Amino acid sequence: MSKGARMSTDCTFCRIAAGEAPADDEFVAFRDAHPRAPVHLIVMPRQHVTSLDVVEQLGSDAAGRLLRFIAMLAREQGVHETGYRVVTNIGPDAGQEVFHLHWHLMGGRRLGDMA
Amino acid sequence: MSKGARMSTDCTFCRIAAGEAPADDEFVAFRDAHPRAPVHLIVMPRQHVTSLDVVEQLGSDAAGRLLRFIAMLAREQGVHETGYRVVTNIGPDAGQEVFHLHWHLMGGRRLGDMA
Repeated sequence: MSKGARMSTDCTFCRIAAGEAPADDEFVAFRDAHPRAPVHLIVMPRQHVTSLDVVEQLGSDAAGRLLRFIAMLAREQGVHETGYRVVTNIGPDAGQEVFHLHWHLMGGRRLGDMA
Repeated sequence: MSKGARMSTDCTFCRIAAGEAPADDEFVAFRDAHPRAPVHLIVMPRQHVTSLDVVEQLGSDAAGRLLRFIAMLAREQGVHETGYRVVTNIGPDAGQEVFHLHWHLMGGRRLGDMA
């Protein structure tokens, strides 16, 4: 079925809603199922890497591009001026639940303690 | 001093970077003055970049190497198996206080909410 009519191909969330990846073929972003803030995205590489602890498996350049992708998403979500927090959890003490490296991008309210 | 072009003399973290802390050529790490966990390091690039929001000024490769440096520090601090959290705050809603890109590396206890 054609998605054309109601979908802006320039809009990351339209593409997510359509089940497609946002701009970069390397990375995927979607809304956290249990959001802790008005804006709460999960951003991850398609490549399977278990956590930041083995980020070298991703390569420096891809890891850096992922951070730029996050900053771009913050702009798209309109929180780059009000502020946002970017977090990744590694292992049990941090409560990592899904063992595929992912970043939390949170904003849209005054955030509380970070740990 | 010759580092002048990339150093802001108004920036606390630039001054720390120019001094003594444990580091390599590109990055510096030191203990947070108000630790929120038994292990709480601040990790930053020597190059002055105000926040993740303009991480492209650092270059993808350096941004990625900084993440690898953080993972190495977690190993050094003995928290890579028990777990740790890596956080950066951007702008007012996140409570960013020092406008030089820096990451918090926190571990050594079961961490609480991330926002």
